[in-house]
Amino acid sequence: MTEDIGVLICDLARSFYDLGWVTGTGGGICIRDGDHVVMAPSGVQKERMRPDQMFTIALDGSILSRPADPTLHPSECSSLFLKAINLRGAGAVIHSHSIHAVMATMLFPGEFAISHLEMIKGIEGMSYGDRLVVPIIENTARECDLADSLEEAILRYPETHAVLVRRHGVYVWGRDWVNAKTQAECYDYLFRAAVDMRRLGIPTVLEGGTDNESLPTRQPRAHSRG
Amino acid sequence: MTEDIGVLICDLARSFYDLGWVTGTGGGICIRDGDHVVMAPSGVQKERMRPDQMFTIALDGSILSRPADPTLHPSECSSLFLKAINLRGAGAVIHSHSIHAVMATMLFPGEFAISHLEMIKGIEGMSYGDRLVVPIIENTARECDLADSLEEAILRYPETHAVLVRRHGVYVWGRDWVNAKTQAECYDYLFRAAVDMRRLGIPTVLEGGTDNESLPTRQPRAHSRG
Amino acid sequence: MTEDIGVLICDLARSFYDLGWVTGTGGGICIRDGDHVVMAPSGVQKERMRPDQMFTIALDGSILSRPADPTLHPSECSSLFLKAINLRGAGAVIHSHSIHAVMATMLFPGEFAISHLEMIKGIEGMSYGDRLVVPIIENTARECDLADSLEEAILRYPETHAVLVRRHGVYVWGRDWVNAKTQAECYDYLFRAAVDMRRLGIPTVLEGGTDNESLPTRQPRAHSRG
Amino acid sequence: MTEDIGVLICDLARSFYDLGWVTGTGGGICIRDGDHVVMAPSGVQKERMRPDQMFTIALDGSILSRPADPTLHPSECSSLFLKAINLRGAGAVIHSHSIHAVMATMLFPGEFAISHLEMIKGIEGMSYGDRLVVPIIENTARECDLADSLEEAILRYPETHAVLVRRHGVYVWGRDWVNAKTQAECYDYLFRAAVDMRRLGIPTVLEGGTDNESLPTRQPRAHSRG
Repeated sequence: MTEDIGVLICDLARSFYDLGWVTGTGGGICIRDGDHVVMAPSGVQKERMRPDQMFTIALDGSILSRPADPTLHPSECSSLFLKAINLRGAGAVIHSHSIHAVMATMLFPGEFAISHLEMIKGIEGMSYGDRLVVPIIENTARECDLADSLEEAILRYPETHAVLVRRHGVYVWGRDWVNAKTQAECYDYLFRAAVDMRRLGIPTVLEGGTDNESLPTRQPRAHSRG
Repeated sequence: MTEDIGVLICDLARSFYDLGWVTGTGGGICIRDGDHVVMAPSGVQKERMRPDQMFTIALDGSILSRPADPTLHPSECSSLFLKAINLRGAGAVIHSHSIHAVMATMLFPGEFAISHLEMIKGIEGMSYGDRLVVPIIENTARECDLADSLEEAILRYPETHAVLVRRHGVYVWGRDWVNAKTQAECYDYLFRAAVDMRRLGIPTVLEGGTDNESLPTRQPRAHSRG
Repeated sequence: MTEDIGVLICDLARSFYDLGWVTGTGGGICIRDGDHVVMAPSGVQKERMRPDQMFTIALDGSILSRPADPTLHPSECSSLFLKAINLRGAGAVIHSHSIHAVMATMLFPGEFAISHLEMIKGIEGMSYGDRLVVPIIENTARECDLADSLEEAILRYPETHAVLVRRHGVYVWGRDWVNAKTQAECYDYLFRAAVDMRRLGIPTVLEGGTDNESLPTRQPRAHSRG
Repeated sequence: MTEDIGVLICDLARSFYDLGWVTGTGGGICIRDGDHVVMAPSGVQKERMRPDQMFTIALDGSILSRPADPTLHPSECSSLFLKAINLRGAGAVIHSHSIHAVMATMLFPGEFAISHLEMIKGIEGMSYGDRLVVPIIENTARECDLADSLEEAILRYPETHAVLVRRHGVYVWGRDWVNAKTQAECYDYLFRAAVDMRRLGIPTVLEGGTDNESLPTRQPRAHSRG
């Protein structure tokens, strides 16, 4: 039911604010509900949103319902959120401006890569020894102009669940909101760890790390976390 | 209604305490309400204020109403808050002692400057590629002695929404409390990012960054954030 | 009573989430209640668990009672938690993915060692000047495969109350949940301090630190903390 | 009324826990109430204390009233808390294990010193340009053995409101609990700033800083904070 999803989005947004992901009205989350998507308005304080401020969007981006307040507009992330939903069947997409994600994009060229951290197992389909890769796309002046390069990255990296945007943040998705949130937390931890490792001169990828692209069999993640 | 603004100020102050902006009774916020300004008392624990402790001040600084407690005095920031209100038409002013702001003032000479971070778009009138500049004024022994140099900085930097005070903190304002808070969060994020970038040897201004002083047309910020 | 322990586990898990110990569904806690152990399910958001989701396990690992939700499985940590319970008589075991623990495992070879920090007194049987040692075992692709090396470390370090897992996290136990939590907080503080000390070029073990293995008499910890 | 002070102590302790000051049962606060002092028990989780667990102590350290629970003992800090109360007329004393305080004691020899930070004005009797000095005493195996060196430091530094304990933490006091808490927050901020400044190669004391020992007249702090 859409109203409950609005309550959930507001609750999650408060939690993301405490994590530093949606500082200064930026960032956000959308959740798919059958054939439509519930989404927050643009440019509002994410930790102070109310369920009656949500938009409902069709999978083609058209607005199905909107809040009574005429000053509200749907998030400019809409077209980006819909890329992950339509190209990957995502049930929820999180956009974070976490400083850990942003710092990581300044330390890696075209791809973020890390291996041999337990937290990698939190990413769907990944094992401890795998080399986790996250594509980094270049930022644009307007958020909507990211849509093409985001789509290209999603198509070029068929196994990724996240795309970093240089000096901007990260988009993370999952099959439902729990999966998207869990993966967003794991990615954020890994970005932070990578920045700390660079500071301490520790390589982020170990020799002997198996490339997850070429690994024939992979440990299933089911029941694999404490 | 003034009483509601008092409740809001107390609520915001608790949130600013959690962010480390008003540690040790320092820092604060004032909100304009028509032709007067609601302001917290000086030297009280900002996270434990009550609405009945607020002062109401005219735009010329005279006290219109005061709390019953005779030991309370209006914030020494009053004259500084009024500078942004009278010179820029600000609807709210936030003064933060955030350690990120203070560390940034020790790493930059007369101006803080950063470019090419998405969070820059959170500052009114700024685009991603712009060079965001924040003037830094020198601290004084008494807070009220900052008023002249604050005024001078505001006049010299007609597009700024913030002034850093060396080894002290930052003043940020906006057209209303939401705009002031949003910008204060973005500035704080940028100060923190700049300090981290310096630590990692990353330049805070990229070549090709357009100077926002000379840029003929600028991306409007409306609806531009996720 | 088992239901109360379920409430307590959910409460502690929320607190551990705020500390960054159980990010991304990882980590957890189990509490012994007489001849059985109450334990959270695997792969759920630890900060959003409900008491009715808990498992009850016998000391041999067999499931005594399970939640109604058939999709839930007991934590893969079960066999690891039971090692500390059966080999050390632990009343509670905490598994944390704290980034401080993980960074520490990348800066020390086979053993983490620190001396001369007041927080060391928070570890059972340790004095200020003692050299606190925590064994580090190598991580494995599957969490259950850690059981043998965890057992070996517990037997080789008969005085330890914690085992670090390289690039993964730490297991900490105590005679009851209060003791386990207190020690987990002290260990986490010490891991963080050690990483900071390394960054600043400060040795983590001082000459003249007495080895707690060889120290004939040791200050009792009882009543020794402020 | 003693019961209200117990409620206040529990409330403050929860807040100090969130600040990282009383991790792992360490640290604490006592508040003077006329001719007696209300104090927490030793070795309990500070963020989970209840008012009925408080001790009441006379100024000579004798126990006036104790909680019903016979397993509770008064804090080993008692004798240290009483030093500041009896030698300085303190109305409240806070003992923190903050990692910022501990790291600072490893970067300074016999005295911590910092100048030219606005937060210095939060310390009673200090101005912005003053050189704030905090004596550092060496830690001892048992907390009660600190009493003599703490007394000596208090007598040698008649203007200090805090004493650092090497690799242990800090004692801070004030004329009442608000003043003690305010100063504890300012000191903690200054310890953190000093560690960050050292990391960045910034000197913590500026030339031209006036020594607060020799300064003839000093800015009064009253009403001097925003």
